[in-house]
Amino acid sequence: MHSFQELSKIFEDKFNIQHFPAQPDTLYNAAQYILGIGGKRIRPVMCLMGNELVNDINPDTYHVATAIELFHNFTLIHDDIMDKAPLRRGMETVHAKFGEATALLAGDVMLVYAYENINKIKVDHLQKVLKLFNKTATQVCEGQQLDMDFAQRSFGDKEGSVSFDAYLNMIVLKTSVALAASLQVGAMLGGSGEGNQHHLYEFGKNLGIAFQVQDDYLDAFGDPDKFGKQTGGDIISNKKTFLLIHTLEVASVAQRTSLTKLFENDNPDKVEKVLQIYKDCHVDQWANKLKEKYLQNALFHLEEIAVLSARKKPMEELSEYLINREK
Amino acid sequence: MHSFQELSKIFEDKFNIQHFPAQPDTLYNAAQYILGIGGKRIRPVMCLMGNELVNDINPDTYHVATAIELFHNFTLIHDDIMDKAPLRRGMETVHAKFGEATALLAGDVMLVYAYENINKIKVDHLQKVLKLFNKTATQVCEGQQLDMDFAQRSFGDKEGSVSFDAYLNMIVLKTSVALAASLQVGAMLGGSGEGNQHHLYEFGKNLGIAFQVQDDYLDAFGDPDKFGKQTGGDIISNKKTFLLIHTLEVASVAQRTSLTKLFENDNPDKVEKVLQIYKDCHVDQWANKLKEKYLQNALFHLEEIAVLSARKKPMEELSEYLINREK
Repeated sequence: MHSFQELSKIFEDKFNIQHFPAQPDTLYNAAQYILGIGGKRIRPVMCLMGNELVNDINPDTYHVATAIELFHNFTLIHDDIMDKAPLRRGMETVHAKFGEATALLAGDVMLVYAYENINKIKVDHLQKVLKLFNKTATQVCEGQQLDMDFAQRSFGDKEGSVSFDAYLNMIVLKTSVALAASLQVGAMLGGSGEGNQHHLYEFGKNLGIAFQVQDDYLDAFGDPDKFGKQTGGDIISNKKTFLLIHTLEVASVAQRTSLTKLFENDNPDKVEKVLQIYKDCHVDQWANKLKEKYLQNALFHLEEIAVLSARKKPMEELSEYLINREK
Repeated sequence: MHSFQELSKIFEDKFNIQHFPAQPDTLYNAAQYILGIGGKRIRPVMCLMGNELVNDINPDTYHVATAIELFHNFTLIHDDIMDKAPLRRGMETVHAKFGEATALLAGDVMLVYAYENINKIKVDHLQKVLKLFNKTATQVCEGQQLDMDFAQRSFGDKEGSVSFDAYLNMIVLKTSVALAASLQVGAMLGGSGEGNQHHLYEFGKNLGIAFQVQDDYLDAFGDPDKFGKQTGGDIISNKKTFLLIHTLEVASVAQRTSLTKLFENDNPDKVEKVLQIYKDCHVDQWANKLKEKYLQNALFHLEEIAVLSARKKPMEELSEYLINREK
């Protein structure tokens, strides 16, 4: 058994190869480029952890972990096109560097390569792995569409605003299910029964929600010295977050009017004033409680998994790392 | 056994359903839209024909034929974004109607649904079907990239121009392999041996080349009354075709200079003058010979397939239809 850090190292060594043919280089250089700009490889490592929760690592799990990371990078390339983002991890996005048409195609071919990596596994698990992978890929696309739909809605009036439940559903689809499925497919390949797979999936899904709440919290209330970048980025870019969605649900008419005005104009004191409304609505305390709720949900499902508790230690460390991080 | 027309009807009846969930409708309406604007369904019908060449139709073949048509529509949505095309079959393209971001995502989710349809087949054929599907999908992406690369090259000087061999390779990747693989996968599911599969693939590949030559020929030299639209569209849009590539290879320096000027400006007599150079270079006769060569290659491989010749009749009819059509 290995820690998250050890598995990261093992995966990175295997993943750090040329994944594509040499030609046409106009296509494959663009695809390989994004794989080279780093990333925490959280999803493939969770896949390996899911396997190790129940058994020694099945060599097939590396193929599926690779597919998961390729799929993730496919979504990054296409999301960046849709969001017209110029930078990712401080580097030019694929479409900024290679043009939109090539970026689109590089994403497409990366998705096909994800499936080809899945197709390397032994046939006994193939159908189940594909079923979970397809379900999850579909949900991630749906989540991205809902995110774009929500971004277009104004929140001036209560009717037009996005409810907490709708927002949560979007986050689950866009973010959490990929973490959940990465864990589950690893356990599947490790030979886990369906009951354990179910609890592991729910652990990952709830952990994913708590992770996203912490992400939103840090962006607003993080310690700039520890956070590594200026806080308030989500407010500046008018991004809908757990904090904003909740504030709009509990705010007074006056506060809602102020928020609407603040988000419609780019005043120099926008961040400061929005944060003040967040604080007046106690959204910082609410966010911590929300995070704690989903963390407890996650740990409940981890508890239910019928393996020796020593095997669960890396999962507990992962939860700790993802949820209590300050950056 | 059925004719191409009968199989078209059978497939259309099966395919004419709602392929996606109801929500989020902002995503799935865009995906379903393109499936409703028609199309000849050539690839899935070729898949069914490949099966019937060797055996009664395996129910799994319908799933794979559906996957093939979904894959084809995925490429149409994304190609139209890359080409910034406003219309397809006289209707608004998906991105023109629903926006680029949604169109991109509708293409993505359609590709995932293609794989999910493949995943409905019995497991014995799954790995081989996926392998062929992935290889072909990759080649289609490569062909599209090469097509875009070629479109950016000037042809003023011999060095910058695209050679016939490079152009042919692009056409094979972008167009022919999908036809070839559709036939092969049908035969595979019908239980054909590898030798027959190989010849059927080569039949489809060569037929695809001949088909493309005829396409280019008709656009330049077709009878406008029969062609159904004005000829010269490829010339107006500066599209590289078999005719243009060959002309540039055989033209005199003076003819090459004229062509370069004609393609750099949009004179009202551009089509007429380009066609005159084509005729001076005897490119019409050359194109007919080229088409005949690939048709003969195709028929040679059809001949080599070890099944009763009566079974090959629909394939012969298909060749006739695709190659001697006047529109």
